[in-house]
Amino acid sequence: MLKQPASKYPSFKPIGLRDRTWPDAVLTKAPIWLSTDLRDGNQALIEPMDIARKLRMFETLVRIGFKEIEVGFPSASQVEFDFVRKLIDENLIPDDVSIQVLTHAREPLIERTFEAMKGARSVIMHMVNPIAPIMRRVVLGLSEDGIIELVQRNAQLFIDLAAQQPQTQWMFEYSPEMFSDTELAFSKRVVDAVTEVWQARPEQKCIINLPTTVEHSTPNIFADMIEWMHRHIERRDGVILSVHPHNDRGTGTAAAELALMAGADRLEGCLFGNGERTGNLDLVNVALNLYTQGVYPELDFSDIDEIRRTVEHCNQLPVHPRHPYVGDLVYTSFSGSHQDAIKKAFAARKDGDVWDMPYLPLDPKDLGRSYEAVIRVNSQSGKGGISYLLESEYGLELPRRLQIEFSQVVQSVMDATGKELTAKDLYELFEREYAVRDVASPQHQVLEDAKKTGGKEVTLTADVVMAGRSFSIRGAGTGPIDAFVEGMSLATGEAVRVLDYHEHAIGSGAHVQAVAYLELRVGQQTVFGVGMDANIVSASLKAIISGLQRAQPTEKTKTNPFEKELTCQTN
Amino acid sequence: MLKQPASKYPSFKPIGLRDRTWPDAVLTKAPIWLSTDLRDGNQALIEPMDIARKLRMFETLVRIGFKEIEVGFPSASQVEFDFVRKLIDENLIPDDVSIQVLTHAREPLIERTFEAMKGARSVIMHMVNPIAPIMRRVVLGLSEDGIIELVQRNAQLFIDLAAQQPQTQWMFEYSPEMFSDTELAFSKRVVDAVTEVWQARPEQKCIINLPTTVEHSTPNIFADMIEWMHRHIERRDGVILSVHPHNDRGTGTAAAELALMAGADRLEGCLFGNGERTGNLDLVNVALNLYTQGVYPELDFSDIDEIRRTVEHCNQLPVHPRHPYVGDLVYTSFSGSHQDAIKKAFAARKDGDVWDMPYLPLDPKDLGRSYEAVIRVNSQSGKGGISYLLESEYGLELPRRLQIEFSQVVQSVMDATGKELTAKDLYELFEREYAVRDVASPQHQVLEDAKKTGGKEVTLTADVVMAGRSFSIRGAGTGPIDAFVEGMSLATGEAVRVLDYHEHAIGSGAHVQAVAYLELRVGQQTVFGVGMDANIVSASLKAIISGLQRAQPTEKTKTNPFEKELTCQTN
Repeated sequence: MLKQPASKYPSFKPIGLRDRTWPDAVLTKAPIWLSTDLRDGNQALIEPMDIARKLRMFETLVRIGFKEIEVGFPSASQVEFDFVRKLIDENLIPDDVSIQVLTHAREPLIERTFEAMKGARSVIMHMVNPIAPIMRRVVLGLSEDGIIELVQRNAQLFIDLAAQQPQTQWMFEYSPEMFSDTELAFSKRVVDAVTEVWQARPEQKCIINLPTTVEHSTPNIFADMIEWMHRHIERRDGVILSVHPHNDRGTGTAAAELALMAGADRLEGCLFGNGERTGNLDLVNVALNLYTQGVYPELDFSDIDEIRRTVEHCNQLPVHPRHPYVGDLVYTSFSGSHQDAIKKAFAARKDGDVWDMPYLPLDPKDLGRSYEAVIRVNSQSGKGGISYLLESEYGLELPRRLQIEFSQVVQSVMDATGKELTAKDLYELFEREYAVRDVASPQHQVLEDAKKTGGKEVTLTADVVMAGRSFSIRGAGTGPIDAFVEGMSLATGEAVRVLDYHEHAIGSGAHVQAVAYLELRVGQQTVFGVGMDANIVSASLKAIISGLQRAQPTEKTKTNPFEKELTCQTN
Repeated sequence: MLKQPASKYPSFKPIGLRDRTWPDAVLTKAPIWLSTDLRDGNQALIEPMDIARKLRMFETLVRIGFKEIEVGFPSASQVEFDFVRKLIDENLIPDDVSIQVLTHAREPLIERTFEAMKGARSVIMHMVNPIAPIMRRVVLGLSEDGIIELVQRNAQLFIDLAAQQPQTQWMFEYSPEMFSDTELAFSKRVVDAVTEVWQARPEQKCIINLPTTVEHSTPNIFADMIEWMHRHIERRDGVILSVHPHNDRGTGTAAAELALMAGADRLEGCLFGNGERTGNLDLVNVALNLYTQGVYPELDFSDIDEIRRTVEHCNQLPVHPRHPYVGDLVYTSFSGSHQDAIKKAFAARKDGDVWDMPYLPLDPKDLGRSYEAVIRVNSQSGKGGISYLLESEYGLELPRRLQIEFSQVVQSVMDATGKELTAKDLYELFEREYAVRDVASPQHQVLEDAKKTGGKEVTLTADVVMAGRSFSIRGAGTGPIDAFVEGMSLATGEAVRVLDYHEHAIGSGAHVQAVAYLELRVGQQTVFGVGMDANIVSASLKAIISGLQRAQPTEKTKTNPFEKELTCQTN
């Protein structure tokens, strides 16, 4: 690192917009949202999504309530082309949702993109090209006039090609690449040139999308730039002003909020901030920031953990435990004085009161979460923590959410007994709570490739003893756990799903055992189960039984939990 | 989630500071930094640090260049008390570093805290108490006058107790808790009451620290609040104005930057943003944002990966792959058009040019990182990716950094051959690159509890064949890997450390194998090694040999890599 970086990194020049109005603006309504998870997010993954994952992401975005979804870059590869065709051909796009597709400003790519859209109901056709000085000089070798000529020619091509597909409802979007690194006057000139060709007017709006391709100044400067554009571009009443912030300086959320205050109408970004390098704007963060200011964001995050799991599955990237609103630890309180204040404030709170809770900016229930007060096992914090003791003394590596779940169990025992717990106490409590010794290994038989129908390749039969009753099950799935879960769902009448799975070895040599920790969704509940066995599959199956035994009985299971199995029992 | 949250979540009232000046300010120097990793960060961990981890964190903070370090809350527990005593008694605090300790505004706690500081050279004594309306009403049951009386009485106690320990150089700090949720006029009244007692003046400054205990408004509003305080508090020239932002709305970094522009002198936060809930201010982020604007932050992050690893070890929490400046993926480019632009700009760049590189906001070399262009194996992105194919076809789950490392190997082969690679090609290349088949399992013997000296409990001897030479080694450590690494370090004359470790099973039943992936630091290099074996220990030892074989020879090893072992060889 240079001690004097001034000669290598020039500071960003302020805009000098002295009569700015954005610092006094208050946000009172939701912006138009555009999810680019399937385009800008997807292209930044080590392993881009396959079609199954793309579909799952698309369905999730629709369910959340996005009405504009960028689904790909069809001219870039066959896989991108095929995915948008699948959406269109199989009628997978709801009537109130517009898909958006990206193209560079090059004739063959634009033609291929229009071809990919044949038969679509409503499309946002998005053209991007670089206009920043570094790109003009080093990459393109084009003058300012050359850029203007290029974008006007391709903007006209949009009009011509759209006219040949009149059954589709078209909206045009233009992004001047590296807007944040471009002279404002030139950005205005390019944008005006495009809206002139597109004849933007209130009855025929187009989207002008201003990206911080690389974020490189404090967010107030970006807000000044947006307010300047908002006030200076031509045909403003025919333009939906959009921004597309990245997060290189860790201030993407702030840049988006200040940009909305400065006059932007629309935000582009991704769920939980996936995207190239440090990511795109985190749309969930901005939406829930609005929510906690009393503005309904028109996006539904009432089961935020389910959305997180889907996104983690699709992107194969974790959401950080401290990620705003959704991380594992963000509704957890470790401090005794914080816990005390929260307890008193909950006690003082009456139904219908405004939310004014110390240390909790939002009611976790609104997102399907719960507040968790994590206690320390004893005052010797550090060496005395629950999971530290279980790991150092017994080799158990509890996943983070299980640590939190088990700490509630420990707390209730400590509240009852008032004494500190030793490592041995904790281990016995753990064994008892998760019935680690009591669950018998289900005798099971795996039939592989039974039929290869519907992608399910494994059939499993098992004799199960659960909560003192024995019965037989049969299920199919992609593997033994999957098949066992299907069998147990059928047998108990409860929808069971595996949310998370960890397994590790404990001990070594001849005595090595596998410990499996499974997070299950049983009906509306989320519970962990734990299983231990020399056989890794048996350990997992035991863990499922452990979890099911711990789930609170619902009305359905309370009356006769195993009705179906008892009638079809085979031994 | 409520559809109309307005009645539950009132919007934050703007300050209405019409003559604000901060939006035109430009940051030109580093603030005073205070790390609270060992206090506010530590108390937010599932497992707080033990003393060994605390020491390692402290040493790292000193090495980075922090001159003010909050080291604990000595009156809260014996462990906290003991740690500060250890720092003082063992002379572990450099002469130019002040330690800071927190106390609530209660007489016995303050007395205990002064007691904990006996003999310290330079101390910032930090008093905090809640003053927000919700806390006055629900938790404390105190009027505004009651708060003023309480803080003045305890501020006076600071003066009295400090006078009894004149050998220590004292600085006093006061934090009105939940400043962000408190009426500005009352915050000013409380702060003025404290600085009156402390007789703040230019020759005897104190620190007034304003926390966003819970962040709950856009950062411009926080900046307005800070500018208002900056302009209205008494004795401003005797006050170091500090802020302590949290990150509940994901805008902590922006809040800190705008607060500095609004008149703050000092920032409190943690490395990579650890802390309660969504975390404290991320000091690394703010420091490097300054750096990329040409301002030397006076903190040294020239080996940022090493710092990250230490922090991850101490906090037992990961840094996200998209974390600004440090995440695994933030200098990685996946897009062909981005890669092309970067390549051209590197070619056009001359020594001494300002840094003006598309898609790279900072020269990764400044932080000891490198730019990585990750190619896709073929145009069928998704189902064609390297790690997707290795996992789906061969069951290998490559850790993320290994994926990136191996993609460079693949790229060089593709550049040479110009053809797309199949899964089989990739697997063979992987086997060859990491010598997966070629490394022989070292015959080894583990002697447990040999002497139990210095915490090393395992001694291991092994006969190793590496790069065609055979030799014997002996090492001690906490486990077999640790001991083997010590033995290999002695044998090769290279400092070898294990940076990261992953192992998983592959196959099942009788044919199950363990695959170990070890990230090693060999001298100044970071390399991965891979080993496969039915025995999990052998797999790890093979992986270490694999990595050592791949490391570039240094001058030392080039001349005679195994000199020492050849002389002490036993078979």
